[in-house]
Amino acid sequence: MAQDSTGIPLRQLAERCGVELAGDGDVVIDRVASLDSAESGGIAFLSNPKYRHRLADTRASAVIVAPADAEATTLPRLVTTNPYATYAHVAAILHPVRAAAPGVHPTGVIAPSARVASSASIGPHVTIGERSTIGERAQIGAGVAIGDDCTVGEDCILRPRVVLYAQSSVGPRTIIHSGAVIGADGFGMAEHQGQWVKVPQLGRTIIGADVEVGANTTIDRGAIGDTVIEDDVKLDNQIQIGHNCRIGAHTAIAGCVGIAGSTTVGRNCKIGGAAMIAGHIEIADGTVIAAASGVGSSITSPGVYTGAIPAQPQRDWMRMIGALFRLRSLAERVRALERWKQEKES
Amino acid sequence: MAQDSTGIPLRQLAERCGVELAGDGDVVIDRVASLDSAESGGIAFLSNPKYRHRLADTRASAVIVAPADAEATTLPRLVTTNPYATYAHVAAILHPVRAAAPGVHPTGVIAPSARVASSASIGPHVTIGERSTIGERAQIGAGVAIGDDCTVGEDCILRPRVVLYAQSSVGPRTIIHSGAVIGADGFGMAEHQGQWVKVPQLGRTIIGADVEVGANTTIDRGAIGDTVIEDDVKLDNQIQIGHNCRIGAHTAIAGCVGIAGSTTVGRNCKIGGAAMIAGHIEIADGTVIAAASGVGSSITSPGVYTGAIPAQPQRDWMRMIGALFRLRSLAERVRALERWKQEKES
Amino acid sequence: MAQDSTGIPLRQLAERCGVELAGDGDVVIDRVASLDSAESGGIAFLSNPKYRHRLADTRASAVIVAPADAEATTLPRLVTTNPYATYAHVAAILHPVRAAAPGVHPTGVIAPSARVASSASIGPHVTIGERSTIGERAQIGAGVAIGDDCTVGEDCILRPRVVLYAQSSVGPRTIIHSGAVIGADGFGMAEHQGQWVKVPQLGRTIIGADVEVGANTTIDRGAIGDTVIEDDVKLDNQIQIGHNCRIGAHTAIAGCVGIAGSTTVGRNCKIGGAAMIAGHIEIADGTVIAAASGVGSSITSPGVYTGAIPAQPQRDWMRMIGALFRLRSLAERVRALERWKQEKES
Repeated sequence: MAQDSTGIPLRQLAERCGVELAGDGDVVIDRVASLDSAESGGIAFLSNPKYRHRLADTRASAVIVAPADAEATTLPRLVTTNPYATYAHVAAILHPVRAAAPGVHPTGVIAPSARVASSASIGPHVTIGERSTIGERAQIGAGVAIGDDCTVGEDCILRPRVVLYAQSSVGPRTIIHSGAVIGADGFGMAEHQGQWVKVPQLGRTIIGADVEVGANTTIDRGAIGDTVIEDDVKLDNQIQIGHNCRIGAHTAIAGCVGIAGSTTVGRNCKIGGAAMIAGHIEIADGTVIAAASGVGSSITSPGVYTGAIPAQPQRDWMRMIGALFRLRSLAERVRALERWKQEKES
Repeated sequence: MAQDSTGIPLRQLAERCGVELAGDGDVVIDRVASLDSAESGGIAFLSNPKYRHRLADTRASAVIVAPADAEATTLPRLVTTNPYATYAHVAAILHPVRAAAPGVHPTGVIAPSARVASSASIGPHVTIGERSTIGERAQIGAGVAIGDDCTVGEDCILRPRVVLYAQSSVGPRTIIHSGAVIGADGFGMAEHQGQWVKVPQLGRTIIGADVEVGANTTIDRGAIGDTVIEDDVKLDNQIQIGHNCRIGAHTAIAGCVGIAGSTTVGRNCKIGGAAMIAGHIEIADGTVIAAASGVGSSITSPGVYTGAIPAQPQRDWMRMIGALFRLRSLAERVRALERWKQEKES
Repeated sequence: MAQDSTGIPLRQLAERCGVELAGDGDVVIDRVASLDSAESGGIAFLSNPKYRHRLADTRASAVIVAPADAEATTLPRLVTTNPYATYAHVAAILHPVRAAAPGVHPTGVIAPSARVASSASIGPHVTIGERSTIGERAQIGAGVAIGDDCTVGEDCILRPRVVLYAQSSVGPRTIIHSGAVIGADGFGMAEHQGQWVKVPQLGRTIIGADVEVGANTTIDRGAIGDTVIEDDVKLDNQIQIGHNCRIGAHTAIAGCVGIAGSTTVGRNCKIGGAAMIAGHIEIADGTVIAAASGVGSSITSPGVYTGAIPAQPQRDWMRMIGALFRLRSLAERVRALERWKQEKES
């Protein structure tokens, strides 16, 4: 996905990242690495002071450290208040995403009324529907299927086999990974005399700018209104987002999360893997939900919420569950003891 | 997915849906909407009396209401015992699914012995295997892969990138959404001297009529017998159904549910999102299972079953878990108190 | 997927499987079946003595039994210490996977520098990137997308619509089912002033020999180092494996499991469906984790771990949850009783 670098002096990296340089700025850096695995030419980062001792042994040519660790090594270094973010920046400079060649592959099937920017790259076996538009420098991978009336913004990357149903909209610089399905029908049906009547799903899916959507994630279209993923939302793999949800800007959601329909998740939330969130509720801005938690009702006050019980050795677990299933009778027994105490004392 | 309507008089909608008309039957309706968002030309529905007050403010040209709400508005209206089902019906009339043009796209790869009905529509980059048949008016989306010896019934819709493994059968009017994989090998292997021996998966996947299968849902083929999805079953996105399961007619299953192999789910069941159901069990007809519940053994008596613990603020949760892990010792302490009471009383 | 057999004498099956024959070795067997469904020509197996009574009624022409059941029937039989593994072996002999015809389909788009073995089969609408290699007899299904610098080993089977991102490696005899996505970017980003900075994912995904990957399963590439799936690992459908995980040889993982990044699962582990495993932990060799369990910290001692609470009728469940949420106050009440007892006794 990323190409190799021929090397950049550390001084230039400091300038491009806007961070402080300490030590030899002429050392040439050609790749990122971890402190443990780095070789000559590599740059590694230290963000957790717990691992400070690794600075002594690393073979990296340079490191990225916080001000508190700046004197913990004599290696050439970048000093920054956010070493991990600077590492991300440096990695993007040293290992830029290889731009695909512009143009439409001859196996592509592009509707006559679709508009594809001349700098966009359309891979093999792609289909693009009527009236859809593909922005400048967008990269559309092999086998992507884009329906009618879709918009794909500038500098978007759609990896192979992404599907956009008709009327889906994707903002600039958004990345969608393989197997993701955007805009499929929401799960809407009316019960009528023991059978189901399909409720047409007439809304759209609107995805903002700078979003990332993981592999095999699904985001359904709205039933009447739209499903909305705001700017800078980060979605991991295998997430399911139901119809008419809204996910607030800068929220990050880890893998295997499910969010039922018509739920609004606030801005700057963090949702751990495999959390399950009910429909028709609201999650306040800035809420943190731990992995594997079940959220059944609205959260109006931000904070850290959790609901996962850690697994135990089976025998302990079975005893605990047994005790749990007898909990109500235990409470009654305590009540009986309390009554007896009261009698005794009166 | 759906096209716009040029408008239909309310009287005609009443007739086509077989429901009662009240008020001006000549008003022309051209789209469905919610009570809140409706504009002139729109029709909205009220199914929950809690929202009756919204009737006063809506700008809809007509509404769909239950008999109990028929006098709560002077707007032109359809009066029906099931407003949501009538809404679904009206929406389907006003926004019919756009039929794809019949014929096989030139990029399709159709095996010589396959039979494709002349009114079926086969999109770009589709493959259809030997001896497979595609029924009248079926719509096969871009990049669908259909193996050998498959049957796709009349009026089916397979959205882009659906995969049917060999010998899969899909009944008439069934809709399968993008990324769904039908008939992949079940998870069967025998342990032999610390290694795994693959057990060939020789059964099929049989899907009935009027079924809907959500995006990225997977339904494995049977090991020896077949996996069967009966008529009018509705499956949401990202569901996993193991080999040799049978899902009874009219059952609806929400997103992210997993059902392990050889389980039989009865008819007219409702299974909430992210519920996990063990293998080799039976769920009675008409059972309701709440979201995020774990079902480990057969349910023989229909009713509502639940197993989800709602997430709490982290500090409360940690204390509760701590108390839970000490529950057995608490029970012992209560037992000790009871013994003491007995001694005192004897 | 598998073709029919014209029949093989039982004696030959015994020889090819290296197991003992009892009774008439000339009976011709042409398919496997279950004890209940078998007809003439079928062979069935009995692995659980609980079902021994079914031997009396089966219409199978032969059976596969353990030594302890060898005298429980007079049918021609294969006697083996592992009837299920022998069944798997027999089924593979009687129902071999149909080999696809060698060659590249004319709709394939193969990069000039890619090397495809002449005995490999490349289906319609496949893309293969620069410098990638496809081994002898490999079968690449319709619409598979293979990026640059990938390796697919001898005798691999990639079912339709599999995606391999650039630099992915797949060992010999590995099977990957439809919709699986190998090597997508891991979920890595740095928080910077309330926004997310993407951390380039520069590692690879390395899959060993004799692995099976289920439909719609996702295995992310490493961030710096690699994500590794060792030999003979079996992964069911809809599993998510995060960046930099390592799954030990011979481990089997059932459907819907999620494993967060940088976790190491040992060898010969068994993980039940929908289990959720946190990131940055280690699971000891030989560990068994029950279905739907949440594992939040390392397991250093092998054994059976569980964490699932079975669903209950809703009313019972609600009362139990109510009691659980009052558990801390119950513990305080018991403490008060104990103090009173102490006072009384002193």
